[in-house]
Amino acid sequence: MIVVSLSNDLGLGAKISKSLGIKHLTAHVKVFPDGEVYVRLPEPQSLKNEVVYVVQSLYPNQNDKIVELLLSIDALNEVGAKEVRTIIPYMAYSRQDRTFLDGEAISIRLLLNTLYNLGVNGIITIDIHSKKAMSYFKGKMFNILPTKLFADKLKSLGIDKSNAIVVAPDEGARERASKLSNELNLEYVVIKKFRDRVTGEIRHELPRELNVKGMNAIIIDDIISTGGTVANIGKYLRSKGVNKVIVVAAHGLFVGNALERLRSSGIDKIFLVLTVPKIDDPLLEYLDPTGLIVEAITKE
Amino acid sequence: MIVVSLSNDLGLGAKISKSLGIKHLTAHVKVFPDGEVYVRLPEPQSLKNEVVYVVQSLYPNQNDKIVELLLSIDALNEVGAKEVRTIIPYMAYSRQDRTFLDGEAISIRLLLNTLYNLGVNGIITIDIHSKKAMSYFKGKMFNILPTKLFADKLKSLGIDKSNAIVVAPDEGARERASKLSNELNLEYVVIKKFRDRVTGEIRHELPRELNVKGMNAIIIDDIISTGGTVANIGKYLRSKGVNKVIVVAAHGLFVGNALERLRSSGIDKIFLVLTVPKIDDPLLEYLDPTGLIVEAITKE
Repeated sequence: MIVVSLSNDLGLGAKISKSLGIKHLTAHVKVFPDGEVYVRLPEPQSLKNEVVYVVQSLYPNQNDKIVELLLSIDALNEVGAKEVRTIIPYMAYSRQDRTFLDGEAISIRLLLNTLYNLGVNGIITIDIHSKKAMSYFKGKMFNILPTKLFADKLKSLGIDKSNAIVVAPDEGARERASKLSNELNLEYVVIKKFRDRVTGEIRHELPRELNVKGMNAIIIDDIISTGGTVANIGKYLRSKGVNKVIVVAAHGLFVGNALERLRSSGIDKIFLVLTVPKIDDPLLEYLDPTGLIVEAITKE
Repeated sequence: MIVVSLSNDLGLGAKISKSLGIKHLTAHVKVFPDGEVYVRLPEPQSLKNEVVYVVQSLYPNQNDKIVELLLSIDALNEVGAKEVRTIIPYMAYSRQDRTFLDGEAISIRLLLNTLYNLGVNGIITIDIHSKKAMSYFKGKMFNILPTKLFADKLKSLGIDKSNAIVVAPDEGARERASKLSNELNLEYVVIKKFRDRVTGEIRHELPRELNVKGMNAIIIDDIISTGGTVANIGKYLRSKGVNKVIVVAAHGLFVGNALERLRSSGIDKIFLVLTVPKIDDPLLEYLDPTGLIVEAITKE
């Protein structure tokens, strides 16, 4: 077994291979002046007949990262790797997991089919957006839920039943909230979303008369993109007298001015998993998924 | 039969469909704030059970253009198109058509395999870099050589046997030069390349004592990328007393300061095929490949 890091492995390849006590190689990746990506595997002879895990996050510049990943698989086929598996901490395109309108592509199906057709027989990923997204991969797919990572961190902060509640921003986050609240022995609620018929504005509300005054709220979601939803909910919870607002989310993309928006909405801290490149900001803290990835590999 | 244009169809989709008298649709393509591409086909019902030609050039931003193309194919599969064929005026990654060093990916193999695996059974392209590149596609691939386009243009300028010679910058361009010179009833030569052992500089020389003084030289190549080779040869030919230096090349990428470099090397005119987005510059003239593409479609 060998671990191969691509350009966006976030330093995880070295940690995974060290933890497993196996060989680690870093692919030589460059971009030609015309924009084409070039991939070369070092020590090609050592990869022959091996089970190889390729590590690559697919954010930012998703398309570049995808093409680089595909090229590395072609190169692994060329050198005669026995099996190719991928560790994809952030799976791009997983939100387009069905046709919402006729004529649309199902983007995640395309991506997973393409990987499978090239010979990838296993994927380890972290908190993929939906189970439906996973259903398109014909090989073995393992989705790491970072519930335990979040729970351990929150416990270390003294979060407990008497002072905190878990908040799911929408129905899509219900299962994540349920699992985290189980782990922490807390209650959870799912926020209801309304569109004001006059102003068109979106309002978020707690589903019932909960007294959250003085409580700590833990908002859980999978992806923070523009941060709009989480910021709105943060503000709303503050207006209800919540003490601290803590956000836990696997993937922090922070598109555009998302970070400023979140900061000004009264959120105290955001815990993320290291699935995309780190942003150095006091609002953010990244949790290391190496242990969970190693566990997933050894389970297989 | 229906023609579907993607975002980088260079206006060719409308012209092809008009010439064939068949329906033309333009896919709705957008980029989400996080950088993911979204593709939706209009009038999906009309595409069901049809043979569809998707038009997309793969330059610039090759990876974005490739992912968009792949998404459109997924969408065509979803709506039940009978056959999917692609018209790719510029085929990206065709220069990486073999491993030059162990451990490399064969990029064009990856691209062509991916298209085939998704169900693309035919590709029409223009002047692909090598025959070897074509060999990786398991479907039907038609490579349009723009020899006739160039020849007609040069004839209209009064180029003839008494005043002109065709020049291939290297062995890779020999066949292109041979075909063009046949069409024009001219002679052709292949330039020899030397690396100066002392300075490391690259020199270009004519292979034998040719009297090119007062002649017009027509340099032919497939891709102008940084323009270095063509600029060097232009200068060299000028130093040998050549009258006009005309360049013909299918694909004008003009990376970085290529255009200025070519202008200052004494090149009088560059004729290109419209295979990548036009650059508005008096040095350049684009020839329309619509007729040749239509011919390729009707031949099938």
